[in-house]
Amino acid sequence: MSEAVFRAVPIEAHQPILNSIKFTSDGLVPAIAQQHDTGEILMMAWMNRESISETLASGRVCYWSRSRGKLWRKGESSGQVQNLVDFRWDCDGDTLLLLVEQKGVACHTGRRNCFFNAVRDGEVRVVAEPEVDPDELYG
Amino acid sequence: MSEAVFRAVPIEAHQPILNSIKFTSDGLVPAIAQQHDTGEILMMAWMNRESISETLASGRVCYWSRSRGKLWRKGESSGQVQNLVDFRWDCDGDTLLLLVEQKGVACHTGRRNCFFNAVRDGEVRVVAEPEVDPDELYG
Repeated sequence: MSEAVFRAVPIEAHQPILNSIKFTSDGLVPAIAQQHDTGEILMMAWMNRESISETLASGRVCYWSRSRGKLWRKGESSGQVQNLVDFRWDCDGDTLLLLVEQKGVACHTGRRNCFFNAVRDGEVRVVAEPEVDPDELYG
Repeated sequence: MSEAVFRAVPIEAHQPILNSIKFTSDGLVPAIAQQHDTGEILMMAWMNRESISETLASGRVCYWSRSRGKLWRKGESSGQVQNLVDFRWDCDGDTLLLLVEQKGVACHTGRRNCFFNAVRDGEVRVVAEPEVDPDELYG
């Protein structure tokens, strides 16, 4: 297990970071979460200014839930938190990359990551099975 | 160098795949490109039905350029093509993951990947340098 830990960024240093990021007209930006040491892509979700600021200050990943219209502190109900290891963004400033230490599984289906649909022999196939019963995560 | 190659999917098999994917009201879906053997996240771009279909049929990645409003055959002008190794999508069907073999560099700045902006000591920093002169790519 890596000891990598993000160095929290105090609130007063957030503005130049937020100014480097381009948000959609809804004030959102897509964020890719990647397990920092294995390179596994865990999930993609959305952030707004407030969730980025909370994530940078706390070192624990907080997204913006578009479906619920509120801050989504990843793992708040399931316990499957993401501790931030590195916070990056791309050349155009319109996509974030969060290197994280994922506790448990990232996907609400109980799978380690969300990208389990694939094409095999020209057909749609599920290529990973749940590691945890979702009822255990949210029960 | 890996020998991994995507098995092209004939056009007549595309509909069930496209039906599994949720597009925005603009008919787009975000696609993460990851180097298949190292796990490096190269870039994020957008695809529409037509670009997905071309990618599946040809095994060479084609995006939809939102700024130019047309198909964007990655590497068409720069030579930095992406050969598809695996095509995946997530639990909600609203994000794609393309495992690729990137030829050369993925970023238009000449860097291997687009995610070179980071926070160091509370400040915005560029953490990767270009490997190729962009003028050589597009000159």
